[in-house]
Amino acid sequence: MITSADSSALYEQVADRIEKLIRTGTLRAGERIPSVRRASAQHGVSMTTAIQAYLALENRGLIEARPRSGYYVRALIRDRVPEPLETRPRHAARLVGVGRLLSRLFDADRNPEVVPLGAAYPGAENLPSVKLSRIMASVARSAGSRGVCYDMPPGSEHLRRQLARRSLDWGTQLSPDEIITTCGATEALTLCLRAVTKPGDIVAVESPTYFGVLHQIEELRLKAVEIPMHPRDGMQLDALESALKKHRVAACLAVPNFSNPLGSLMPDENKQRMLELLAKRDIPLIEDDINGPLCHAGFRPRVVHSWDQEGRVMLCGGFSKTIAPGYRVGWVAPGRYYEKVKALKLTNTLATPTLPQLAVAEFVANGGYDHHLRSLRRNLGEQVARMSEAIADAFPKGIKITRPQGGFVLWVELPKKVSALELHELALAEKVSIAPGPMFSASLQFENFIRINCGHPWSSRIEGAIGTLGRLVQRLG
Amino acid sequence: MITSADSSALYEQVADRIEKLIRTGTLRAGERIPSVRRASAQHGVSMTTAIQAYLALENRGLIEARPRSGYYVRALIRDRVPEPLETRPRHAARLVGVGRLLSRLFDADRNPEVVPLGAAYPGAENLPSVKLSRIMASVARSAGSRGVCYDMPPGSEHLRRQLARRSLDWGTQLSPDEIITTCGATEALTLCLRAVTKPGDIVAVESPTYFGVLHQIEELRLKAVEIPMHPRDGMQLDALESALKKHRVAACLAVPNFSNPLGSLMPDENKQRMLELLAKRDIPLIEDDINGPLCHAGFRPRVVHSWDQEGRVMLCGGFSKTIAPGYRVGWVAPGRYYEKVKALKLTNTLATPTLPQLAVAEFVANGGYDHHLRSLRRNLGEQVARMSEAIADAFPKGIKITRPQGGFVLWVELPKKVSALELHELALAEKVSIAPGPMFSASLQFENFIRINCGHPWSSRIEGAIGTLGRLVQRLG
Repeated sequence: MITSADSSALYEQVADRIEKLIRTGTLRAGERIPSVRRASAQHGVSMTTAIQAYLALENRGLIEARPRSGYYVRALIRDRVPEPLETRPRHAARLVGVGRLLSRLFDADRNPEVVPLGAAYPGAENLPSVKLSRIMASVARSAGSRGVCYDMPPGSEHLRRQLARRSLDWGTQLSPDEIITTCGATEALTLCLRAVTKPGDIVAVESPTYFGVLHQIEELRLKAVEIPMHPRDGMQLDALESALKKHRVAACLAVPNFSNPLGSLMPDENKQRMLELLAKRDIPLIEDDINGPLCHAGFRPRVVHSWDQEGRVMLCGGFSKTIAPGYRVGWVAPGRYYEKVKALKLTNTLATPTLPQLAVAEFVANGGYDHHLRSLRRNLGEQVARMSEAIADAFPKGIKITRPQGGFVLWVELPKKVSALELHELALAEKVSIAPGPMFSASLQFENFIRINCGHPWSSRIEGAIGTLGRLVQRLG
Repeated sequence: MITSADSSALYEQVADRIEKLIRTGTLRAGERIPSVRRASAQHGVSMTTAIQAYLALENRGLIEARPRSGYYVRALIRDRVPEPLETRPRHAARLVGVGRLLSRLFDADRNPEVVPLGAAYPGAENLPSVKLSRIMASVARSAGSRGVCYDMPPGSEHLRRQLARRSLDWGTQLSPDEIITTCGATEALTLCLRAVTKPGDIVAVESPTYFGVLHQIEELRLKAVEIPMHPRDGMQLDALESALKKHRVAACLAVPNFSNPLGSLMPDENKQRMLELLAKRDIPLIEDDINGPLCHAGFRPRVVHSWDQEGRVMLCGGFSKTIAPGYRVGWVAPGRYYEKVKALKLTNTLATPTLPQLAVAEFVANGGYDHHLRSLRRNLGEQVARMSEAIADAFPKGIKITRPQGGFVLWVELPKKVSALELHELALAEKVSIAPGPMFSASLQFENFIRINCGHPWSSRIEGAIGTLGRLVQRLG
């Protein structure tokens, strides 16, 4: 039976159970699964819930509907390929050195001749360009002189109100006055780090983690202590606890919802425990929720911020992964560090551009943001599934691939002998960009891992690129 | 005779000589000055040059045309009021503490009920809102998906090409590849400071200087050593030289063209000597040229960068003071620190918003930027002249006012007894915002100085505000 103590949606719990049946081999590829009516009885849920569960399983790429015949377990090529194990970063706090790799990566992705599987951004085809451009044009005209003038921090009230309204969906309740808009989530993270640390301080981060964060830590002269990750559940809290005992940690920066590069989703009870662990030592949490809206199926996950009573969580987000990277509209709800973050914002960029904020606010309020999110989630889920199957096909045996339930990146473990940095060089020579594993570690670990961006719709060009990568991995292995 | 060795324009040299006649009392208020024909003969220049000289003098607020009667010396109320003396900052390098004042100032200026004489920005009436909004609307539509996508550093090539073309007007010659676009000049300055200093380092700054820079220095945990300023010629180079001997200075940050708050313009020979002084000790110069385009009359002044052969000058600029503060489009040509600045840009805001860059580039290329600049310069010159006369009228005897030849701020020395911070409080209570002197000093000097923003067109509302200030100064004095 499904218990109501579990906080995720009922249908998701049903889907989770069926997924387990598939993953453990109780239900095999090609087999017909029970009818909706039967599933409803089996799991003690309504017909509607059973249908929702099947749709979720379909979105996860686990089952497929066949006309007039019911639902079947898909032949999952990627099930030949296991997930990576939990990570085991080295324990020392370290100065970071990923800057040069990062600059090269973005340079490569600027080149239109290169297949961009390196940087993590959604392809233009997945963005609401036409509608948003129309809104921008209309906002520019109607805002008149207000559009060319400063919108000083905390930034556009219209946008902050939209964010506050939507925060209910994340399980929390922000007021517009708690939010400061920023030039993308990148600025939000920088401001948070600067607000709660000073040079030489130690920051606890996920391992692997987004190289942009490592680069920020590097350039702010901070040190990173890397916390092991479970590929599905995210940060390992026992490991976090012992790191907090061992090091004087000034802040913890985490991506509980669909981490980058693992795509892990922290279970709600882990989120609560993480917050307790940090509270005990009065450590602020910088919660990067940029991928929160990008669940492939089911409900959008809750933010750790929703359990925070003390203003300890600095919640960061933005619209670069969902509607418009080029608008550079991000935001932060910095809790008790509000005044400090606001002052830093003034020194960093003075104000966030006025019109992009207004256009985003208008799109969120009246432009069909929810409709867009639904199709984006579906597309990204499909692209991730498609890409993992293609990788499983093209790469040699022995590799491992993550199973992200949100976001749009895959983390691939290559045979031990393969150097990801060497692969990166060779691939670039053949006009394919990937992100090599060492970029995701302060200690340049993950030598035989790569991250693959699945933000672009599937195409023969991408298929060719994956073929190229497979051939190169084979050669290096 | 006018000699051609002098590098300023011929007509300016004529205007300078006539200004001298006026200032020394050779020509008195109300007197008719020689006809254009006669002036042409007197100074050995063409009629055209003589006319240009008279227009320049008119722009400087020194003479006025009377219909069918010729040019007359204006009754300059402000000639009752002297300029402030050279500044004498304390000599120690200091940690800075202006953050709180600054946040309050911007909060006040956000309030539409407050007369905004505090923050330094041009009023909306002086900005090309209609034309720019039309361009933004058209760019948003025509850019399509390119407009919503990242434009990764170094940023828009279209914009960088426009800047490179215009750099000839500043006496220098940038290539598009040397430029990185930023979220306003504020980000450019932050990135430069971060690129060439580490916490604890000493930065030489003008005294008084723009509080935003002091706040950046404060938040980056740097120390400021304050160099005395001449109210017209800017940084005192003997003082700079001895400061460089005394302190290990990591960088020098200066606003050679129309400094803030003094409005001083460094003579070309001083610019060269400053560069030599810094070169001798291999110190980078962060040259803030945000006000460079805002000369009230005559040619736009040269940048120090134009004499730099070693990539030592990091030239910063932007469009916030000329066309659109709210677009947040700035730029930096960081010389030999290019790669470092580009890497920092990635960690700070990742990319500059795409559409605002494209709109600004289009306005500069085809939107009548030069035409706009001409009328802006004239307007700002007039507003500054008008404001100084009003202050001279309304304030008690014994005050001093600067004579800026560019930009749009005035620096006013009040009687010794008057506390600018107290005045700031009292004025705010009466809904008038000003910037108190201590904000412009790392050591909170200039207790009896205020800065007045003249960016807004003259109005009875501003006139009333100046009256209020005058009354309050009288009360406090």
